Amino acid sequence: MVSSEFIPKFGLAREAETKILLLVVDGVGGLPHPDTGLTELETADTPNLDEVAGKGICGLVDPIARGIAPGSGVAHLALFGYDPVKHPVGRGAVAAFGIGLDPAPEDLAVRMNFATERDGVVVDRRAGRLPDELNDKLCEFLRERIKIEGVSFTLRRVKDYRAVVVFRAEGLSDELSDADPGRVGLPPPFVSPKSPKAERSAQIANEFLRQARELLKTPEARSIVGDPERANTVLMRGFAHPSYLPPFGEVYKLRAGAIATYPDYLGVAKMVGMDILDTGDTVAEEVETLKRYWDDYDFFFFHVKKTDSAGEDGDFLKKVHLIEEVDSFVPGLLSLKPDVFVVTGDHSTPALFKAHSWHPVPVALMSRWSRRDDASAFSERECAKGSLGRFPATELMALMLAHAGRLARFGA
Amino acid sequence: MVSSEFIPKFGLAREAETKILLLVVDGVGGLPHPDTGLTELETADTPNLDEVAGKGICGLVDPIARGIAPGSGVAHLALFGYDPVKHPVGRGAVAAFGIGLDPAPEDLAVRMNFATERDGVVVDRRAGRLPDELNDKLCEFLRERIKIEGVSFTLRRVKDYRAVVVFRAEGLSDELSDADPGRVGLPPPFVSPKSPKAERSAQIANEFLRQARELLKTPEARSIVGDPERANTVLMRGFAHPSYLPPFGEVYKLRAGAIATYPDYLGVAKMVGMDILDTGDTVAEEVETLKRYWDDYDFFFFHVKKTDSAGEDGDFLKKVHLIEEVDSFVPGLLSLKPDVFVVTGDHSTPALFKAHSWHPVPVALMSRWSRRDDASAFSERECAKGSLGRFPATELMALMLAHAGRLARFGA
Repeated sequence: MVSSEFIPKFGLAREAETKILLLVVDGVGGLPHPDTGLTELETADTPNLDEVAGKGICGLVDPIARGIAPGSGVAHLALFGYDPVKHPVGRGAVAAFGIGLDPAPEDLAVRMNFATERDGVVVDRRAGRLPDELNDKLCEFLRERIKIEGVSFTLRRVKDYRAVVVFRAEGLSDELSDADPGRVGLPPPFVSPKSPKAERSAQIANEFLRQARELLKTPEARSIVGDPERANTVLMRGFAHPSYLPPFGEVYKLRAGAIATYPDYLGVAKMVGMDILDTGDTVAEEVETLKRYWDDYDFFFFHVKKTDSAGEDGDFLKKVHLIEEVDSFVPGLLSLKPDVFVVTGDHSTPALFKAHSWHPVPVALMSRWSRRDDASAFSERECAKGSLGRFPATELMALMLAHAGRLARFGA
Repeated sequence: MVSSEFIPKFGLAREAETKILLLVVDGVGGLPHPDTGLTELETADTPNLDEVAGKGICGLVDPIARGIAPGSGVAHLALFGYDPVKHPVGRGAVAAFGIGLDPAPEDLAVRMNFATERDGVVVDRRAGRLPDELNDKLCEFLRERIKIEGVSFTLRRVKDYRAVVVFRAEGLSDELSDADPGRVGLPPPFVSPKSPKAERSAQIANEFLRQARELLKTPEARSIVGDPERANTVLMRGFAHPSYLPPFGEVYKLRAGAIATYPDYLGVAKMVGMDILDTGDTVAEEVETLKRYWDDYDFFFFHVKKTDSAGEDGDFLKKVHLIEEVDSFVPGLLSLKPDVFVVTGDHSTPALFKAHSWHPVPVALMSRWSRRDDASAFSERECAKGSLGRFPATELMALMLAHAGRLARFGA
């Protein structure tokens, strides 16, 4: 049983005057560079993280299970102690939560990309990484014009070329295929129902797509974009009903705030009921946010995104530098004197692999009540020596709460 | 959830141009010799296996669970990612599959031993390790003469004194006791039904036993054996309906071939739908088979038997030498350039224990995507330092597939 089930089932959570800071460095785990035999973490100069590892206890976390590479949504749910196998996380729903929408359980949310089409085929699935400002204007343009009988919808920008649509109507189903060819050179597709009960939902989504694609080709839309082709079509991925999970704050009896620069991570945090704390685009701004809200919360989820992007881009050195940047902020985090400080990742994104991988993620936990072990640095190999051993991410919440004096004894 | 459930449930398996080689050294795990404090693996000189451990990642595998010593059938099922607690494996069924029979799900398979009886009690449960040739002749002799109303059956030699019977009739049940006293000095018993619905099956099995035992005492049978007593009776063990499991090839989306010198291991491989690749009696011949079929399959189960037999015989030094023999073939295996190479055992058979034991089994996995860890040799103690940690055998398949680039990401 995972933390979010075990702890409330036996009434173990208790309030305390302690604070937990969970630093998630996205995709932090790596693979050895062929020239040096050292991973990104082993290459980076990280005196502060190493001190945390040396003073605390370490281990290796499997986000889902040995061998399974996770998406970011399920990986974060697991870190928050929720079983991601029982709680499917739809991309559309995460995106909607992430921009502050509060979709109802029966609503249907989906991610939408602005894309560019030429001669009937998609030539750019990201419309040249459309700027936020144009995205906002196109969303407004479409919002005012698209009309579907018996359906209301919200359409809002996420970031760059990405937006989200939330449909509200009777009897919607998320059993729909994506309307995204997945690569360029193919026509922008429509949605298909995966089961008979999704037929009406497919009609609604397709009517939306039809009108949006037609409207984006009008002179009016073209003059907004200032380009004859760019962003003249839309694609859709990840139809999902929002999941409403047992609220984090109630399950673990604490006030939880989330600090992240990217909407999707805020989306998962929101989905479990954390408060979203306003912040900027940099780690420095995230640290400022943390300091500003320090007195108001017991648990902080602090997310660093760019390490993952560097891993996905295959940029080993950039990931190394970003890890070093994170390290430089650690003294500032520790100066707040969290009772429990944990650093880990949601999954590994080795620069050599250029994608999320299944490799377990180093974790270090430091608190007044943590033992010492043989791990002397924050790296894959050192953490493998740690006394936390190798364990599933869903067990981390109980460990953090225990070290914060926030769990009662189990059983007589 | 085990690999064979998790992977198909979430549609994670994907095809790839990669090859996986799983080397199972039967009963490889051991216990320290009292004179040296070194296990069989630590005593053996294994430069090649040590190199694999040094370059790859290591761990300790629990075949079923901590403290549980497994039979070979369930241990192999677990290595193949199937939960052996959910999929009971009947010895008779494994034996039938192992010699190439294709029993139907309603058939009843059982292992039969030729044995020697004197003055009404069993004096040799193996009939002096009857040669295959005599076994074949006796099977033919019995096959032509035994008649049971409403029942057809197959009777075939397995190896030495062992044979298999597959009964086909209406309403057969495997809830039958063994017809084997388990030791010498007792009369050859008949079968008893364990439940009322097995009564007719018990009558059929007992009628078979009665006729077989009578026929084996005739002058005709005696002249075949050329001995007045040897192999003058039969015993039966392990009544079972064949299990048909979700096919390995479909579950994991690969073409799988099995190479083993002993029928029972081929039986388990066949039960999960692997192809059986013809080979001889030695590891050298198995390697030749592997090379011959290398282009035709994606996954190879390569089984080495004799280490287990040496362990069961309590022959520490013989087991050491056999491990060294396996080691000498490793460069030949690696010369085929498998994308993932794994070496482990199905269980431990310490020579000092003279039986399958519960001790976890060392495992080393080497691939382009494997990290390095502190384990520097293929032994129980070194692998305990490995970053794979200690884990159940059922998780190994996902690890192998992941390292072979054959698993898609889980979740959004």
